[in-house]
Amino acid sequence: MTKNSQQRLLTLTARKLDIDTHQELTIYLHQDSYVCHSEGFSALSRVRVNSDDHSIIATLHIVRGSQLTPYEIGFSDSAWQHMQLTDGDQVWVSHPKPLESLSYLRAKVFGHKLNEDQIRTIVNDVVAGRYADVHLAAFITACGDRKLDTDEIIALTRAMVDSGSRLNWQRDIIVDKHCVGGLPGNRTTPIVVSILASLGLTMPKTSSRAITSPAGTADTMETLTEVSLSLSQMQEVVRQHGGCLAWGGSVQLSPADDLLIRVERALDIDSEGQLIASVLSKKIAAGATHVLIDIPVGPTAKVRDQQSAKRLAEQLRTVAQALGLQLRVLFSDGSQPVGRGIGPALEALDILAVLENSPQAPQDLKERAILLAGELLEMSEAAAAGKGQQQARQALEQGHAWQCFQAICQAQGGLRQPPVANYRYNLLADCAGRVAAIDNRLLSQAAKLAGAPVDKAAGIVIYKHLGDSVKSGETLLTLHAESPGELDYAVEFLNAHPELIQLQPDPIP
Amino acid sequence: MTKNSQQRLLTLTARKLDIDTHQELTIYLHQDSYVCHSEGFSALSRVRVNSDDHSIIATLHIVRGSQLTPYEIGFSDSAWQHMQLTDGDQVWVSHPKPLESLSYLRAKVFGHKLNEDQIRTIVNDVVAGRYADVHLAAFITACGDRKLDTDEIIALTRAMVDSGSRLNWQRDIIVDKHCVGGLPGNRTTPIVVSILASLGLTMPKTSSRAITSPAGTADTMETLTEVSLSLSQMQEVVRQHGGCLAWGGSVQLSPADDLLIRVERALDIDSEGQLIASVLSKKIAAGATHVLIDIPVGPTAKVRDQQSAKRLAEQLRTVAQALGLQLRVLFSDGSQPVGRGIGPALEALDILAVLENSPQAPQDLKERAILLAGELLEMSEAAAAGKGQQQARQALEQGHAWQCFQAICQAQGGLRQPPVANYRYNLLADCAGRVAAIDNRLLSQAAKLAGAPVDKAAGIVIYKHLGDSVKSGETLLTLHAESPGELDYAVEFLNAHPELIQLQPDPIP
Repeated sequence: MTKNSQQRLLTLTARKLDIDTHQELTIYLHQDSYVCHSEGFSALSRVRVNSDDHSIIATLHIVRGSQLTPYEIGFSDSAWQHMQLTDGDQVWVSHPKPLESLSYLRAKVFGHKLNEDQIRTIVNDVVAGRYADVHLAAFITACGDRKLDTDEIIALTRAMVDSGSRLNWQRDIIVDKHCVGGLPGNRTTPIVVSILASLGLTMPKTSSRAITSPAGTADTMETLTEVSLSLSQMQEVVRQHGGCLAWGGSVQLSPADDLLIRVERALDIDSEGQLIASVLSKKIAAGATHVLIDIPVGPTAKVRDQQSAKRLAEQLRTVAQALGLQLRVLFSDGSQPVGRGIGPALEALDILAVLENSPQAPQDLKERAILLAGELLEMSEAAAAGKGQQQARQALEQGHAWQCFQAICQAQGGLRQPPVANYRYNLLADCAGRVAAIDNRLLSQAAKLAGAPVDKAAGIVIYKHLGDSVKSGETLLTLHAESPGELDYAVEFLNAHPELIQLQPDPIP
Repeated sequence: MTKNSQQRLLTLTARKLDIDTHQELTIYLHQDSYVCHSEGFSALSRVRVNSDDHSIIATLHIVRGSQLTPYEIGFSDSAWQHMQLTDGDQVWVSHPKPLESLSYLRAKVFGHKLNEDQIRTIVNDVVAGRYADVHLAAFITACGDRKLDTDEIIALTRAMVDSGSRLNWQRDIIVDKHCVGGLPGNRTTPIVVSILASLGLTMPKTSSRAITSPAGTADTMETLTEVSLSLSQMQEVVRQHGGCLAWGGSVQLSPADDLLIRVERALDIDSEGQLIASVLSKKIAAGATHVLIDIPVGPTAKVRDQQSAKRLAEQLRTVAQALGLQLRVLFSDGSQPVGRGIGPALEALDILAVLENSPQAPQDLKERAILLAGELLEMSEAAAAGKGQQQARQALEQGHAWQCFQAICQAQGGLRQPPVANYRYNLLADCAGRVAAIDNRLLSQAAKLAGAPVDKAAGIVIYKHLGDSVKSGETLLTLHAESPGELDYAVEFLNAHPELIQLQPDPIP
């Protein structure tokens, strides 16, 4: 069918409807639209929309009110962006051709192994917005558990790297780190970057914002300095200071990953293959050559036992090797939160305390940062084997890391003071004892109810760690909120979940 | 957390937005809504909405325009229906608790076998609207291929039956039939019902409307009589005449199936288990005791080869037996369309011609109806073995079936004349030859482009079948449309797909 004849038959006037449907490209037609009738389109139909320059496949919602006339077509934010339209532009619609890559997806459901080309086609269709959320969900499910073998994970990682930009820092060694999530307050990254950059290594760190946690590294750093940097700004900061602490969102690294990850979390289906491809594709696209992976293991962390941790580490190493990436894995204690603050500004205060060598600085956060920095120094041969931690500790304790951190923040737009929340609530121990268990997941949830990460100052400060002894009436944690309503809400949650911090009676002396 | 405190904190005013998102319960909040901030809700978040009487879990879309104030909450049609609200009602929102049944879904992804209780919990959550489309997609994918074993299929069928109403006709034998789709024009049901009811059997037929095909039995019957009957109307028609030809939509049979089937078609992932549960749950819920399943087998039909057909038949029999249903399977020729008409009114005309014993009646449709009716007569022991077809033929050829059909239509609200389309186009053979192949899928698509099933009179009349000899310039088929635009669109599709009807040169005599 020629474009002209389609245009003649089914032209509609484009309207931006200001509806955020997130990644799912959505269009809206009036129920009396002649296009619905002639094409047999109904709610949830997949529809191809064409302009002179762009084309998308979108999901249809039908409206009956006065938002649209029958001669108009409304667009969600994501669909509008893909089409690059101006209000009033003419577009035409048609039935989309069946996507070839959906037949590969079906083959995977039927247990077939996919080759590199097939995986690449799927990833390209995902990035082009041709998959509805139901297709993304089917892909994630079909790859769930351990249904991708090593070849497929390698192919997926490579295709995800190639789906976006790839940074080039013009240096031989670029270090990076990643933590396989689930531990509140585990904000070592800014400290590790500062230590390593102060020792002459290059660590151009791009981080994400929180999706389901109370803070991401980008959220935390944003309370201290500017993080939305253009690529050339990042390059300048790194050239001057050896490192940066920027938000990764402005530099389109592995965009397929961003699209998959939200549906993955909605489903909460673990897929080892996609976790590996997600982590490694982001690192490779960011230009890393040497990567350290921190896997916290604990009953309420993401990885819950040693066996799963070992298997994951083995797969990470194999895939990294195939892609020419140096990789080391560290298993760490995932049984409790790290530091004291949970939430963007509260975590920033912990980071400052460690960097400034304040006597009140949380030692667990400091020691974790030193451990990670030491490993990276040895991996990149900037320190002799067994000497990495010592060198890292010196850089930190002698203030070089703090100087470097200040310089990076200055270069990114100035170092600022994190905001403070006005509304507080102290959770008191109702008996004496020792801390026997802390639930990471409930703690994160309470911090989010208090407003984190949207309210930067909101969150939790926790004063007690595993094994600490507690007096009756002593403060276990403080909730911070920016409004009384949010504070109340989080307080009720705490009261409903006394198992969040479990105390064991002290043995009689 | 108590209801009162939630209400105090997060009350919103309900607004019906007149947006049809089909089954996915969707709510809309303004980006400045204090609820978005305090709860950390963002686009695609799952949100629990509560009124005094009802509660749903819905998917959030964020709006920025003037459609809503920050103190309002908009509802899609399906969400509005579930909540049973009036414009201006107060509702409150919260984070939904994680659904227990999603952990069963994940277990299935990880290859575990589900027990009856787990499957029942999933089905109940689906029917209650607690699954987003991405969850439905994950469930369908996890059950895809042959990942449900026989026990699981039996449990799924039973849970789907129990999820809705179940009709009881107060008679020992209730016959029903089902065709495992894919064959345009295969509209035997009204003829079979008329034959069997005229012979004293009870066949209270509820049919669906088309979802992806150019006509469903309900669409076709609607051109001849009223099909939206209440349960008591159906009961009265059946009591008087032994059969009815109603739309199943008004009697909530196996509602879980309706919800799953649309996502299943969007994914186009075949799941043998879900197909079986879908078909059998509908029949059992409709009160059937004896069911005949017609499986057309052919290269462009749903079931493409004998081996798949046999396996499917075997599973159908096992599950039916476990549920106390008498079931027989018939393999039929699925290589070409049945009758001449494709589209609601055009298929109705074929049915009338067969029932009226018109000399122009399509013989293939007549013979299929006799075959199916004969099998059902023998299954229900209304005819001796080997005598069913003869009895069915007599009932049809002596006009009893036609009388019975007229009586049923009168009782349903009067027999009417199907509408006629004004716009026509004849597709002519560009050479002489014999018909070597007809593509069922392309034929259906062309009929849909012409306007079927929304435009009742639209569709295709096909004059040639496999093996028929064709002269150059002879008419192969006629397109019928209700508007010139739709006709043009279907014509272009025909021109773009000359492979729709393939001619082979006649051998030189």
